[in-house]
Amino acid sequence: MKPNYNYKNVAETYLFSNIAKKVNAYLAENPEKSVLRLGIGDVTLPLAPAVIEAMHEAVDEMGKKETFKGYGPEQGYAFLRESIQAYYARRGVTLSTDEIFVSDGAKSDCGNILDLFGTENSVLVPDPVYPVYVDTNVMAGRKISYMQATKENGFLPMPDEALKADIIYLCSPNNPTGAAYSKAQLKEWVDFAIANNAVILYDAAYECFVTDDAARSIFEVEGARKCAIELCSFSKTAGFTGTRCGYTVVPEELVFDGMSLRKMWLRRQTTKFNGVSYIVQKGAAAVFTEAGEKQIQDNLAYYRENAKLIAACMDECGIAYTGGKNSPYIWLQCPSGMTSWEFFDYLLKEIQVVGTPGSGFGRNGEGFFRLTAFGSRETTIEACKRMKALLKK
Amino acid sequence: MKPNYNYKNVAETYLFSNIAKKVNAYLAENPEKSVLRLGIGDVTLPLAPAVIEAMHEAVDEMGKKETFKGYGPEQGYAFLRESIQAYYARRGVTLSTDEIFVSDGAKSDCGNILDLFGTENSVLVPDPVYPVYVDTNVMAGRKISYMQATKENGFLPMPDEALKADIIYLCSPNNPTGAAYSKAQLKEWVDFAIANNAVILYDAAYECFVTDDAARSIFEVEGARKCAIELCSFSKTAGFTGTRCGYTVVPEELVFDGMSLRKMWLRRQTTKFNGVSYIVQKGAAAVFTEAGEKQIQDNLAYYRENAKLIAACMDECGIAYTGGKNSPYIWLQCPSGMTSWEFFDYLLKEIQVVGTPGSGFGRNGEGFFRLTAFGSRETTIEACKRMKALLKK
Repeated sequence: MKPNYNYKNVAETYLFSNIAKKVNAYLAENPEKSVLRLGIGDVTLPLAPAVIEAMHEAVDEMGKKETFKGYGPEQGYAFLRESIQAYYARRGVTLSTDEIFVSDGAKSDCGNILDLFGTENSVLVPDPVYPVYVDTNVMAGRKISYMQATKENGFLPMPDEALKADIIYLCSPNNPTGAAYSKAQLKEWVDFAIANNAVILYDAAYECFVTDDAARSIFEVEGARKCAIELCSFSKTAGFTGTRCGYTVVPEELVFDGMSLRKMWLRRQTTKFNGVSYIVQKGAAAVFTEAGEKQIQDNLAYYRENAKLIAACMDECGIAYTGGKNSPYIWLQCPSGMTSWEFFDYLLKEIQVVGTPGSGFGRNGEGFFRLTAFGSRETTIEACKRMKALLKK
Repeated sequence: MKPNYNYKNVAETYLFSNIAKKVNAYLAENPEKSVLRLGIGDVTLPLAPAVIEAMHEAVDEMGKKETFKGYGPEQGYAFLRESIQAYYARRGVTLSTDEIFVSDGAKSDCGNILDLFGTENSVLVPDPVYPVYVDTNVMAGRKISYMQATKENGFLPMPDEALKADIIYLCSPNNPTGAAYSKAQLKEWVDFAIANNAVILYDAAYECFVTDDAARSIFEVEGARKCAIELCSFSKTAGFTGTRCGYTVVPEELVFDGMSLRKMWLRRQTTKFNGVSYIVQKGAAAVFTEAGEKQIQDNLAYYRENAKLIAACMDECGIAYTGGKNSPYIWLQCPSGMTSWEFFDYLLKEIQVVGTPGSGFGRNGEGFFRLTAFGSRETTIEACKRMKALLKK
């Protein structure tokens, strides 16, 4: 048997394990210090009461013969797909429930969707980048080009005739930079993709953080149904990082060489997947009830307030950043010309604040640093206090 | 963008949709008739009380800030992997928890594990076969050969020097035939795989139905750690078809061209998967508690008794079959030389019993028919009564 040799080319990043090692080493030497973690992109607020109630009911259903559920539809129960359809409709986007596929999370879909594409296709990803876009394509042996997301373009690279590819990744609001495309900017990408017979893989995992008129779905943009697949998730919207549910939209119009990507994805999912737990789907559907939606918005408001506090802290310190407004991420330029890891060490040693070195997300991340709004209010306030004391000029 | 053209070669089987169409058409014409369904391989008993209790507790944990769980380990929580490790240890199989990977089900793993293998590898599957083995490989463009599972070899094909392949699928107890390999037979397969540098993908989804000394895990056989990956599931063991949890064992010894399949699978899962819902994992762990195990065994005993009733009915009718003993499936030869679909129509029209035509599982399935023990006791008894009246000579 010949293994998939492409795996040899997958880079080991060790980003989060290196962070953990450094923090542990510091704490071993300074056991009396309190470390404030604003690094990892994981939520901290518990699930909303409406979700908890729905899941308890679903668990009870699974325990009784009359209401027990066996195999469900691989693409998700109609009740959840209809709720998602209505969620899009409220933003003026019309989808058929056949175009909505429920999964165990956007990360799974992000990897698995590549099954639909030939390995000879070229791929365009932004730098800095969510590493999954790169690693999943390296595993399949695809050629990857990078588009430059820099301070100069507000970390929002635009189409470039010199950088064509068959598969284009866009993530907005962006992980890690927090920058969000406007609809006008996305329209340029859609036109570019159609002109070049390319597919856009649009990662909308952070759409719920958009508060201004930035795009929340690429399908708000005319023509997107002809070129885009959208990946979305309950992880950040409703705190489902450990509960696991997401969804992917594959429009009917996506037909390449006579092959419907929607039909192919249905075939992929019915062959290699058996649907999401009924209990989890019931919980996800509760996110869209009146009570659920209010509770979710309260949680999002809590994180947004954290983001605002960190952004205000950066303003006060005179540190340039993106994000913090349409995003739980604050992507800041390390002061005094420090590298990402130098700044990491500096914050850890001086004020015991832990963030994520930007260089872990790509070459253009060097000299930048990511803080997240997913901590508790107390942690966020204390971290800002310490950062102001250290960094304010 | 060039789509994955291999998808054009995936056969549409329509097996279960054809069954549904025929049953619906019959009921439309005969609305007063009661149809007894012994076709689909889905469980009907509710989840065990211990599982329900554990999931209620987990849901409560997710609703409180102090006990909320965000991202978990992609390969599964240690508490569940340790329970699975102990489950194997009770059968004399020693595994490291690093070799156990928890997933949302064996069907997902069965598709996703193929990521680890080059597309140039050849594949050997039994005929008749669980269609997922074939379709997932066709999607990747691999060449497939078939080994003949026939009445003559008890539907248990053995190694054949003329039929070599890089990847060999074994499913025991088998879906659809219910036949189960002995340890001595598996030893021949293990030796054959090692001699030919092949990997065995061993589907043990039905291992919990083994009651005699047939193998329950391929790792009960010496040498298997050098050539086999085992896929297992809570679906049939504990009725998790709609709850979704499974696990795959990839031994440390599986190293091909210097590449560790265990490390590759860990990398695949950490890149393209984000773990199973904490709630579901807590439910799965409850299967291995003292109370859980007793309740699960009661449910299995219920299905086994159904299988025994169907097998006894076949005996009384003088119809040859495999399975029914170490398996919830009874694989019977259609009487009077009928084809699979002729027998399907005959049973539906004469006595309103629905099963699965064997021809849907491959060429060697023609003339055979699958009945399952997953119905209720009442349905099973009534179906047997009707079959005896119709088929007894």
